Amino acid sequence: MKIYRVIDDAGQSVYAAQTPQGLAAIGGDIFGQFSVTDQPVRSTKLLAPVTPPNIFAIGLNYRAHAIETGKPIPSHPVVFAKATTSLSNPGDPIRLPACGPSAVDYECELAVVIARTCRNVPAAKASDFVLGYTVANDVSARDWQVQLGQWVRAKSFDTFCPLGPCIATGLDPSDLHLTTTLNGQVMQDSRTSDLIFSVPQLVEFLSSDLTLLPGTVILTGTPSGVGVARKPQVFLRPGDQVTCAIDGIGELTNPVAAATSP
Amino acid sequence: MKIYRVIDDAGQSVYAAQTPQGLAAIGGDIFGQFSVTDQPVRSTKLLAPVTPPNIFAIGLNYRAHAIETGKPIPSHPVVFAKATTSLSNPGDPIRLPACGPSAVDYECELAVVIARTCRNVPAAKASDFVLGYTVANDVSARDWQVQLGQWVRAKSFDTFCPLGPCIATGLDPSDLHLTTTLNGQVMQDSRTSDLIFSVPQLVEFLSSDLTLLPGTVILTGTPSGVGVARKPQVFLRPGDQVTCAIDGIGELTNPVAAATSP
Repeated sequence: MKIYRVIDDAGQSVYAAQTPQGLAAIGGDIFGQFSVTDQPVRSTKLLAPVTPPNIFAIGLNYRAHAIETGKPIPSHPVVFAKATTSLSNPGDPIRLPACGPSAVDYECELAVVIARTCRNVPAAKASDFVLGYTVANDVSARDWQVQLGQWVRAKSFDTFCPLGPCIATGLDPSDLHLTTTLNGQVMQDSRTSDLIFSVPQLVEFLSSDLTLLPGTVILTGTPSGVGVARKPQVFLRPGDQVTCAIDGIGELTNPVAAATSP
Repeated sequence: MKIYRVIDDAGQSVYAAQTPQGLAAIGGDIFGQFSVTDQPVRSTKLLAPVTPPNIFAIGLNYRAHAIETGKPIPSHPVVFAKATTSLSNPGDPIRLPACGPSAVDYECELAVVIARTCRNVPAAKASDFVLGYTVANDVSARDWQVQLGQWVRAKSFDTFCPLGPCIATGLDPSDLHLTTTLNGQVMQDSRTSDLIFSVPQLVEFLSSDLTLLPGTVILTGTPSGVGVARKPQVFLRPGDQVTCAIDGIGELTNPVAAATSP
């Protein structure tokens, strides 16, 4: 099932599922009991499919990406976080921050959406706690990422976490095809089979002594092909259009724009 | 004014202010319009004074602490984040994580509580957006901090962000005395005048192109005297009691205990 969060024609934020007849309203709580109704939903705007209580992300989790950055293959998942305020919707502009507009990069990532409160989850049971998967663009200001060493700020500016277009349930995350296309040119093209730490391993590691709440989002890392590792380097510019896509989930497209005034 | 969040004798979480007659209920919204009523409040349990949408923290922000860790004085604030689920109450146990129980350290910090939504705040106007100050213990698993390089996980285990006892408003943050006492022995003893980046500078830096929501908490860094930098090193053990205190705010005391079972 593909679960979308949209603004309906009454101006309300609602969950809806894709059906052969179009979008149909979901009754209940997607983080509890829910079902698809026969009530049609007319979407006026697509929203990020969840508003997470925490956004965790994993660095250097594709073999080819670890190699392109010149870093050793990590022995454990390298966890960082993005501010919840960096969340953005499909179609909304990625704003180049005024304090660092010149080295902003894309990162297509498979994102896990946690279904219910959990802690100390063994990898073998991880799928019991996953609602589904969505696409994330882990937008990153490479100058601040290098300058500060700690990555949180470089990856937490407003609009730096586009998420969507939907939560796909019942998906096997072990060998999905993912791509990033910038102004029509394919920049990243990989499969989740290149992940160093699999989704179940990440859920086990992250949930060790740490409670994952419903709606928590885990960005699982980006494959090779990022702009900063290219020769010459490619960074996002106003007027660009970037599409992150994962088979079985869909496409997440965002234009790029300059910062808004204060 | 000192603003406490407590469980009252009806089992409700309420905000109350310290008055000469004891705790009095606060009417309204502490992140909007509010006033102190003449309604007495009987506290049955003290809570962390806020449930933040994001917890930001600053590394290496006291001169003497940067020196004791052997790191250079940073040219910009080193921003990281703690999971919102690491929040803990005064008096509640700090649980040594089962996945890393042996190198858990204390860090007393002045914590800023943001009053209202803001972005691109100049340092000179920062105080307009600060509700007040509280005490944080930025509990840190030093083994994971070193192992992963990125600090988020090492500082985000459940119970790793005790906060309290209150939000003190109308406080000048520029020269506050702060101490950590472990089992009665003073381990950290410094003043916020040793901060490399002041509270107004941190608000300006963090809010650049990044929206701070009401209730956002900013941990401003810890002074020298942390356990990992001592010879011999000192780490938290079950049965310990750790008190972080800041003049004008109060004391934040937590016992230390082993991990709970899954």
